[in-house]
Amino acid sequence: MVTQSSVEKFLDDLASGQPTPGGGSAAAIMGAMGAALVSMVCNVTIGKKGYEGVEAEMKAVREESERVRRRLTAMVAEDIEAFDSIMAAYKLPKATDDEKARRGAAIQAGLKRATETPLDCARACAEVIALSRRASERGYLNVISDGGVGVLAGFTGLRSAALNVYINAPALKDRSFAETATAEIEQLVEFGTAESEAVYKVVRDKLG
Amino acid sequence: MVTQSSVEKFLDDLASGQPTPGGGSAAAIMGAMGAALVSMVCNVTIGKKGYEGVEAEMKAVREESERVRRRLTAMVAEDIEAFDSIMAAYKLPKATDDEKARRGAAIQAGLKRATETPLDCARACAEVIALSRRASERGYLNVISDGGVGVLAGFTGLRSAALNVYINAPALKDRSFAETATAEIEQLVEFGTAESEAVYKVVRDKLG
Repeated sequence: MVTQSSVEKFLDDLASGQPTPGGGSAAAIMGAMGAALVSMVCNVTIGKKGYEGVEAEMKAVREESERVRRRLTAMVAEDIEAFDSIMAAYKLPKATDDEKARRGAAIQAGLKRATETPLDCARACAEVIALSRRASERGYLNVISDGGVGVLAGFTGLRSAALNVYINAPALKDRSFAETATAEIEQLVEFGTAESEAVYKVVRDKLG
Repeated sequence: MVTQSSVEKFLDDLASGQPTPGGGSAAAIMGAMGAALVSMVCNVTIGKKGYEGVEAEMKAVREESERVRRRLTAMVAEDIEAFDSIMAAYKLPKATDDEKARRGAAIQAGLKRATETPLDCARACAEVIALSRRASERGYLNVISDGGVGVLAGFTGLRSAALNVYINAPALKDRSFAETATAEIEQLVEFGTAESEAVYKVVRDKLG
């Protein structure tokens, strides 16, 4: 599992000329960092004097942010698998009509997976952004900049995942699926843009 | 060294209630991911048929992006050390006037370090953004979305580092240093905002 290798090894692999890991995996890690920072704000706030009134809320947010973090961490490997499945499909034989048809279907199946995975990543990142608002509005003031980094990381994970939908969707022959996916990603980007700037403003105002 | 632990362990530590690693380390990792993705675009482009004309340029960009990546990777640990030095200073004895003065000076030295480190991180992220433009404008078309994720990661590293300058600079007694640092970070954010949107547009237009 790629996320069990060291941070330095992951960065080396990202920098290499090998197609995976690439931007899709980086998107999932940025989302997971955003979720982790939301959890951090909750963990620091829970049990802090003067924050008893928000303890139940912080525990509820943490339960969700940890669930989303697990999903996003798993997506790092899923993105690699999806991309590798396209690469494998392109290498299938194409001598006969039957082989050509099988190869074409395998490429389309891979592209569909490589569109669904970043779409799912973007959905999870949108959850990170929504959770970061709850953490930043009511969390312990001294870690508010961490909440701010959390929302920025979540939003960049979302925009980065969107780029992977944009690059794969046009090649899909199932136009109905491609158009539904593109419409959903546009909505997620729109939500993320407005919401992340609003949360960033909450953080910036608290920093004075 | 924190970057030698696994990605999952780093995320767990980020999520914990311990003050480090926090948003400053996440900022440096996002910058390093941006630099790695710039290197990836260069590595895939170098030797590609039809891209002979940009090979020297891609090699020059890669040399710089790898240098910046090493700097940013080292900053993950530097950010932790800077923050820990403040925490250690706050724990110094403060019974006598002499102890109070020594403690105050140690806190100020820690805060200065915790302002310089994210400022340096932001400078490195600005370099990532500038390099991502060169990679995205002339790199291999099929990995252009990775260049797009690279610029987004670099910009978010910059904005995240800026939040750490904003939180530490106001407590600095050396107002001249604080104001110079704040002015520089504002300039870097301004450059990063305009330049990263321009590079993102280059990528988006190429994706069609």
